[in-house]
Amino acid sequence: MTESDLGAEALALDKQVFHSWSAQAHLNPIAIARGLGSRLWDHAGREYLDFSSQMVNVNIGHSHPKVVAAIAEQAAELATIAPPTANLVRGRAVAEILRHAPEGFTKVFLTNGGADAVENAIRMARLHTGRDKVLSTYRSYHGNTGAAVVATGDWRRIPNEYARGHVHFFGPFPYRSEFWSDSPEQETERALHHLERVILSEGPDSIAAILLETVPGTAGVLVPPPGYLSGVRELATRHGIMLILDEVMAGFGRTGHWLALDGVDGGTVVPDLVTFAKGVNSGYVPVGGVMISEPITKTFDDTVFPGGLTYSGHPLAAASILAALQAMESEGIVVNANRIGTDVLGPGLRALAAKHPIIGEVRGMGVFWALDLVTDPQARTPVPAATVGAIKAACADRGLLVFAAENRIHVVPPCIVTDDEVAQALAIYDEVFGEVGAG
Amino acid sequence: MTESDLGAEALALDKQVFHSWSAQAHLNPIAIARGLGSRLWDHAGREYLDFSSQMVNVNIGHSHPKVVAAIAEQAAELATIAPPTANLVRGRAVAEILRHAPEGFTKVFLTNGGADAVENAIRMARLHTGRDKVLSTYRSYHGNTGAAVVATGDWRRIPNEYARGHVHFFGPFPYRSEFWSDSPEQETERALHHLERVILSEGPDSIAAILLETVPGTAGVLVPPPGYLSGVRELATRHGIMLILDEVMAGFGRTGHWLALDGVDGGTVVPDLVTFAKGVNSGYVPVGGVMISEPITKTFDDTVFPGGLTYSGHPLAAASILAALQAMESEGIVVNANRIGTDVLGPGLRALAAKHPIIGEVRGMGVFWALDLVTDPQARTPVPAATVGAIKAACADRGLLVFAAENRIHVVPPCIVTDDEVAQALAIYDEVFGEVGAG
Repeated sequence: MTESDLGAEALALDKQVFHSWSAQAHLNPIAIARGLGSRLWDHAGREYLDFSSQMVNVNIGHSHPKVVAAIAEQAAELATIAPPTANLVRGRAVAEILRHAPEGFTKVFLTNGGADAVENAIRMARLHTGRDKVLSTYRSYHGNTGAAVVATGDWRRIPNEYARGHVHFFGPFPYRSEFWSDSPEQETERALHHLERVILSEGPDSIAAILLETVPGTAGVLVPPPGYLSGVRELATRHGIMLILDEVMAGFGRTGHWLALDGVDGGTVVPDLVTFAKGVNSGYVPVGGVMISEPITKTFDDTVFPGGLTYSGHPLAAASILAALQAMESEGIVVNANRIGTDVLGPGLRALAAKHPIIGEVRGMGVFWALDLVTDPQARTPVPAATVGAIKAACADRGLLVFAAENRIHVVPPCIVTDDEVAQALAIYDEVFGEVGAG
Repeated sequence: MTESDLGAEALALDKQVFHSWSAQAHLNPIAIARGLGSRLWDHAGREYLDFSSQMVNVNIGHSHPKVVAAIAEQAAELATIAPPTANLVRGRAVAEILRHAPEGFTKVFLTNGGADAVENAIRMARLHTGRDKVLSTYRSYHGNTGAAVVATGDWRRIPNEYARGHVHFFGPFPYRSEFWSDSPEQETERALHHLERVILSEGPDSIAAILLETVPGTAGVLVPPPGYLSGVRELATRHGIMLILDEVMAGFGRTGHWLALDGVDGGTVVPDLVTFAKGVNSGYVPVGGVMISEPITKTFDDTVFPGGLTYSGHPLAAASILAALQAMESEGIVVNANRIGTDVLGPGLRALAAKHPIIGEVRGMGVFWALDLVTDPQARTPVPAATVGAIKAACADRGLLVFAAENRIHVVPPCIVTDDEVAQALAIYDEVFGEVGAG
């Protein structure tokens, strides 16, 4: 069979694959055969530059040789073992994760992905506080399972609202403020006032947790304005509420810091629980987890924790975490993401925005950026979905894979991206925005 | 570092691992370093015969060379890709799964594990029917996430009841009947009457799905009495209710059939959705999924399915599924599980029961058995937890790993188990029951 037969087979078989978040009769996928670094190839050898990092998760790039080798080695030795059994590579992975955790974090619960990390963080907060409600923002995504999808604020919550105890509020977003503010400082002040009013109106003693993405991702890379997260921490502490920071998308290099919380408010905000997935092993093996601060671990010293899963602490996943985090450190991959954001990608995207009025705002840090596209820069009117679709298709035609969400293009390459690759992508964006902006 | 230093390191690091379903200060794990077939070894080289299959999931045995090779190969080529992208190995894995699905099943949605398979099956049933309620049994386990854990009937549901629309009923269990029956036939008849009364009392038009483990597993390997599942199918059809069979534990070889539903009521029961995980790839890479019948897939042809996840259709997981199912077929592994159950393990366990009055009932099929332990065979009084703990420890001392639940020992070796390994395990059980029964 030739390579292009394999591509045809992949597309034919894809008709039997039920796809996430989609109407199944309206799919038009490309088939990807292999990857290396920031690049992917289809079966015909056509090359793509990956500025999506797939689901904003392949932080270390595709087919990193050290992670590939660790997976092969662990698979041969012991791919899986029951969670109650101790396992060396699992212990080493957890220790490596805790090296990057905030002060006072002493244990890690490993799960299958981000959604069940959020599920278990909510469970811990509820049982630790003896309270029920979970507060999260409308502009958020926390996963697709029963509690996580109702904690989610965006449209994906609405057909799935079968859990109780979830309350939503508005977070800060200076470019599209819900609070009539005209500066980031005022946005912080008013967003905190709004949150405090929600807390008091719901009844602080009924609230187990405030659940926030440190930098809301799918909602539009909403880097919180200075002082907001510190203010939330203060409110949570004052009312005995657990602060859960969801770092599933933002964590492990994406923002140019090990955790996004290290890069916000001078790294001073210490939450009670941190959820993670994606970047922790770049998705080479499905995994997620919860970093747990000591007071919460103590709650479950003598009381059974009523949560668990077959693949918790999976050795193959653990081996991929250990190898990925060690490679990210020894190869300076997080440092690279930071430098790229500050020196190359941030300035490059701002130069594009100065040239193309369709770009209403450039937001982000590290390798985590959004272009908020508008038909009218004054009114900040979002472009229609068809425009974003046309941009995405025009980029793909030029060999650039982008991540699109609502009226935005998210510029989210792997943390290993080079200056040359950024220059290549910027040139394609420039050309495409020139065309689409004119047309 | 010597091997025993590594064992000590594994146990020391395990203090930072937060464990499923446990009080964290009361763990006393062993550390497992490697596995092959039905056997595992710790760092000091001590050998264990695995009659737990870990979480009743390593159906193909440990470190199967074809699955290990497929993982290593796929990791080097492309470990992960976004769900919207087509991928050859994913398509081939889905096609291989559908070869074992009931007639009329046309698509597969891949998830991270069993819990989110159940979550998504419930979501599909609700959106397909436009109804809310999900009926499941008290003696069941369906996963640890928001909706799945409330669908679960056992104690793990109770601290986690934050979802609505879940109703529980009693399934059939001739040995401990809820219906005062005195034969399997009467148990079937009365259990169906009870279910019909619950359906009518809840209001059939409010019920989206009946969710059942084909053979309830953790609840005690409750093989349904003849006619029960057919009767449930008939009730569901009559009232427009979707029948979801949860084959997470029972599927892919465990019962000596490809699916457990093939081995019950002559394989005549066709559900609307089937959930799976565990045995589909023996847990080498975390994965689960939902097999979907055509009418339900059609509902989402033009309507967006509001569920999804980053690792859906993960190529590394898909490669392990494809290799595992092909090896199970070409090596006759499901056939072996069937033969072992009928000719060796079933008769062997019944002989043990005849000798040791502590064994109140032997239930099961294939390599899926439970010993229901009692202090009094007439009153069928369950033995206390301490007795089961003592049996488990005495078996481990003799190099046999067992799966214990409540008052039961589940005898659940890999599907590849040999006659000699069964003989070895039966001899250890015999010795231990002799000791514990006497003491």
